[in-house]
Amino acid sequence: MNLPSPYLLFIGNATDPLSIKMAKSAADWSPDMCVGEFALPGCTVTTGLPLMSIEEGAQQGAKAFVLGFANSGGVLDPVLVDSIITALENGMDIINGLHDKLTDIPEVAAKAAELGRRLIDIRHPTTKFKTGKGEKRPGKRLLTVGTDCSVGKMYTTLSLAKAMQAKGIKATFRATGQSGILVAGEGIAVDCVVSDFISGSVEALCPANDEDHWDLIEGQGSLYHPAFAGVSLGLLHGSQPDALVICHALNRDHMRALPGRPLPGLEDVIEMNLQAGRITNPNIKVVGVSVNTSSVSDEEALAYCQSVTEKLGLPCVDPIRHGVDALLEALE
Amino acid sequence: MNLPSPYLLFIGNATDPLSIKMAKSAADWSPDMCVGEFALPGCTVTTGLPLMSIEEGAQQGAKAFVLGFANSGGVLDPVLVDSIITALENGMDIINGLHDKLTDIPEVAAKAAELGRRLIDIRHPTTKFKTGKGEKRPGKRLLTVGTDCSVGKMYTTLSLAKAMQAKGIKATFRATGQSGILVAGEGIAVDCVVSDFISGSVEALCPANDEDHWDLIEGQGSLYHPAFAGVSLGLLHGSQPDALVICHALNRDHMRALPGRPLPGLEDVIEMNLQAGRITNPNIKVVGVSVNTSSVSDEEALAYCQSVTEKLGLPCVDPIRHGVDALLEALE
Repeated sequence: MNLPSPYLLFIGNATDPLSIKMAKSAADWSPDMCVGEFALPGCTVTTGLPLMSIEEGAQQGAKAFVLGFANSGGVLDPVLVDSIITALENGMDIINGLHDKLTDIPEVAAKAAELGRRLIDIRHPTTKFKTGKGEKRPGKRLLTVGTDCSVGKMYTTLSLAKAMQAKGIKATFRATGQSGILVAGEGIAVDCVVSDFISGSVEALCPANDEDHWDLIEGQGSLYHPAFAGVSLGLLHGSQPDALVICHALNRDHMRALPGRPLPGLEDVIEMNLQAGRITNPNIKVVGVSVNTSSVSDEEALAYCQSVTEKLGLPCVDPIRHGVDALLEALE
Repeated sequence: MNLPSPYLLFIGNATDPLSIKMAKSAADWSPDMCVGEFALPGCTVTTGLPLMSIEEGAQQGAKAFVLGFANSGGVLDPVLVDSIITALENGMDIINGLHDKLTDIPEVAAKAAELGRRLIDIRHPTTKFKTGKGEKRPGKRLLTVGTDCSVGKMYTTLSLAKAMQAKGIKATFRATGQSGILVAGEGIAVDCVVSDFISGSVEALCPANDEDHWDLIEGQGSLYHPAFAGVSLGLLHGSQPDALVICHALNRDHMRALPGRPLPGLEDVIEMNLQAGRITNPNIKVVGVSVNTSSVSDEEALAYCQSVTEKLGLPCVDPIRHGVDALLEALE
């Protein structure tokens, strides 16, 4: 999936910063691919990029109008549909990160067909994949894996990519979810692939490469999450990683969407990922731990990371507070 | 997915017994749901059921025409399409176990629409599933898991269901692949579900039940198969099995479709399934081993099974040669 850019980020009438995570990811990580944001009256949040009208976005060269907000109701508000139509009329393709397909909105489908614009549902892969082979490919690969969903795997992977590229190391971020795909402009939403092809789709995402090139692959879910572990395992086998970074969110009460189910311990997550990962890469190693420590103070964050390092003998950082140099050193 | 029956089993112009495995499964395990078979000139194999014309099948009450053969070319021979049209004209719905969708054949789609018949692609689930919850449900569950694909998981599961039902134990076979779905008349092709919903679809397949009821769930793939392990893990989490039966094929040279990759040892398969299975059922147990010993003599088969029992302390049988009573005893 290759996306047209630059983007005009549409954040609708959102009032919850978390609900525009997708637009914010693109603004934070790929500002060069964004001309600005477009919001409706009532919107109280921002990506931090310049606010502009759809017409202004078009004048600044926007090729795609990105629906970068969450849509809890399941049905698009008519006022949002009007904006999509206006963007189509202003020459933009539409990039949709919502579950619902744009082609299912007759008005939008008709206008796009009339004007010859693309409606790109990035959660719905259209490629036909092969089943996985498990054969070792040239090139080096790193995968972020988690104790849970939404613990910072994308953020950690992007931080590593940026840091490695800054040092002149050949490194490519490989996106596996809708926010990552928007940031990278390409990728595969692995959780939307037909289950027979999970690892096969990941093999297609990070094919054979130069021996000194690193694919930095965004993980999904957790081997310990009863809803999504199958996706995580297919990702692990398809990535055949040389290196794992374990991602964790401090003080999370329970696994995502499953009240009462505590998060697994770091040791268990390491052990299960290594055991399963050896099936496609016998030399797999854990190089470090990345923790979202936003729930505690600087001092507590540092103390927690140090305690992990002492216990596991691995570097442990919060990428925002401490950077990822300690992880890179372990990788080298 | 609920299938119309009885079936007329269409085996085309097949010459390889393995290529009609789906039709043969229905004939072997659900003969009461089949009126007979229909073959074209040149066909040299049989399901063992009476050969008849499509018209005779209709007279005997067939409600569905089952495409029960493999289709290596990917495109249906025009002579096969003619038979499908004739079956539609004789009042039957069409059940398709091939990868290609029947609705993609314009002639078939038009005729079915004209006559109001159903085209049922059993590899393509149409249900919308929820993501898995991992909550323990009432009722007991058994899952067959494998050292590899195609090692006898469906056969073992059906053997257990038949034996338990004969003893008056409440037991239901739960189909997860196209052959099993045809045998049971219902089920979910788990390897065709979108990967976010693997375990959720299995939770829907074997919902809460009587405390003394057994769901006997057909496994798929293997945690050790790099192409399909994600499916196997989602099945394991969604089934939350109380009991596992490990399935194996003796003297198989390499993992299915992966020359050079040896099968894992039984101990490794047991350990990895128990470890992962504890996430949704901490009391999961392995009750026995089921082996396809068709590659060796009766004496060698018995010696192999005895050696497994001595080594692992678990009953080990070939369901065809020895029946499954030893597994049932271990279950009780």
